[in-house]
This record gives sequence, structure tokens and C-alpha cells, in this order.
Amino acid sequence: MSTDPRWLDEREQRAWRGLLDMHAQLSGRLRRSLQRDAGLSDADYGVLAELSEAPDERLRAFQLGRRLQWEKSRLSHHLRRMEGRGLVARQGCDTDRRGAEVVLTATGRAAIEGAAPKHVAEVRASFVDALTQEQLEQLGAIAAAVLANQACEDDECEEPLGANEE
Amino acid sequence: MSTDPRWLDEREQRAWRGLLDMHAQLSGRLRRSLQRDAGLSDADYGVLAELSEAPDERLRAFQLGRRLQWEKSRLSHHLRRMEGRGLVARQGCDTDRRGAEVVLTATGRAAIEGAAPKHVAEVRASFVDALTQEQLEQLGAIAAAVLANQACEDDECEEPLGANEE
Repeated sequence: MSTDPRWLDEREQRAWRGLLDMHAQLSGRLRRSLQRDAGLSDADYGVLAELSEAPDERLRAFQLGRRLQWEKSRLSHHLRRMEGRGLVARQGCDTDRRGAEVVLTATGRAAIEGAAPKHVAEVRASFVDALTQEQLEQLGAIAAAVLANQACEDDECEEPLGANEE
Repeated sequence: MSTDPRWLDEREQRAWRGLLDMHAQLSGRLRRSLQRDAGLSDADYGVLAELSEAPDERLRAFQLGRRLQWEKSRLSHHLRRMEGRGLVARQGCDTDRRGAEVVLTATGRAAIEGAAPKHVAEVRASFVDALTQEQLEQLGAIAAAVLANQACEDDECEEPLGANEE
């Protein structure tokens, strides 16, 4: 039943593989540096960064999962481990753990504040400094266009993102 | 001892967060679609895609790990599971499993050939179609610049990428 797909042409392929390879290289490098300098995984850092930027440093679990684009099982396992290390706490909603709020603890705040300066220096060295001001501008616009397209497709789709997480 | 870091300015932040958010949204969407349509995880697809593009459809394990930017333990666990499902086989080097070659099986080849048309259609709908030809060109150049910068830093660093995997 499938018609022959329109494979990516050279320019499309270069952009797409470029995005994947660039992301893989950067995230690999940042992951190694976070682990070495701060004892945090990139997953830990993602959770801590989202919480530290949220109002009152707290988010409901399903919101956190949606922002990180993690599956429920990954989120739940990871939060349990971070809770065990005292980096986050979970509050409320005993009947539905995904509805519970995830809160940054003092330990978690100290961990991200300790890691951030080195992390931002790595982002600068490996990413920002490789690009011109114009390219930074272009990439911001490219990301905005892809994300806007995504949001509009999510509105249309029958099974909206995170529908079964609420 | 740390001097105050140069935090990212607005343009830099927009590019960096844009890259992370765009990648998270796209990979989340593609992950759900691969799972639904082909029963493959994005990790499975990554391994199958690398092998299917390699000469003779085989790579040494450390090469595969380097391309995917996976840690050794993740690679080893994941290959064991894929081997159990018949998607890949490992050959040779009984004394050093990371030196072993990972080979695409007929089952693995069928899996990626079955998944690819739908996958490329998703990449087109969620990424390519959101951008102009000029933006695709720009993104290709941006990725090339970041990757070139990365390679040059890796040359300098005392612990080159993958040094302890060989």
C-alpha cells in the first residue's frame, strides 16, 4: 500500500544529518564534562535546569515529562533515582504519582548552581564560538520555525502530545 | 577559583535552547512514530541505520559507539538486546567484546527497510517542510562549522574521544 517515499535530496540530507550529528557530538561532549566536573548526568542536568527555571522551582511530573520529551517510564525511574540522591522531592497526589509535583531541593539547587558556570563555558567553547552572530540568529529562526510547525501538527493530531499523561 | 562565567546573551540563548528544544521535539515525535509503525526504538533505528550505511553492513563495536556517541555500558546493553531479537549479530574477538564486529542480520535489514519510508516521511513533515531551501542550506553549514570546531578541539584534548575504547 505504501507509495514510494520521497527520499531526502542532498541539501535536505545535509541539514538533517547535520542536525543529528551536531546534537550527538555536543550532547556527548557536554555529558562527559558534566559527569567529570559535577557528577551529574545530562538527564539529571535537564531535570534540574527545567525545575530551576520553573515558577517556585516546581513542576507537575507530566509537565516535566512533556518538556523533556521523556516517556513516562523513563521519567518515573529517573525521578526516583534523583529523589534517592536528594536532588528533587515529590509532593502530593499519592493516588497518581504523575500528577505529583516535583520540587527542586536545596541539594538540587546547589548541584545546578555548582555545575552551571562550567557547563555554560563548555556550551560557549563547543557551540557558540564556532558560529557567527548571523548563524546564531539563523539557527534561532530555524528552531522557531520547526517548533511552530510541530505545535500546529500537534493541534491537529488525534492523539495530542501527552494526552494520556494527564 | 572560578571567575564569573560569561552567561549566554539573548541571541546565543535563543540559538542554544532552540537547538535543544527542536532536537527534543523532533526526536520525541520520531521515536513515537518508529515505535508505533515499526516496533523499533530510536536507539534501535540509530544502530540499524549506521550498520546499513557501513561497508559490508558491519562496524567494530567501538566505531559504532563513537558514531552514536554512546557510553560503553549503554552500547553493550543495547547490542545484547538487539542481538537477542535477531536484529544484529556479533562476530569475532571473544576476548574483547568491544573489538568485536557488529553485523546487520537479514532480520535487521528487513526491519530498517520496512521502517525507512514512513520514517523519512515523518522527517519531511516535521522538519524539512517547516524550512525554506535557504534555511536548510544554512543549517547544513551551521552543523558543519560546529562539527569542524569539535574535531579540532578533540585533536587538542589530552583524552581524545574514544581513546579508551580501542
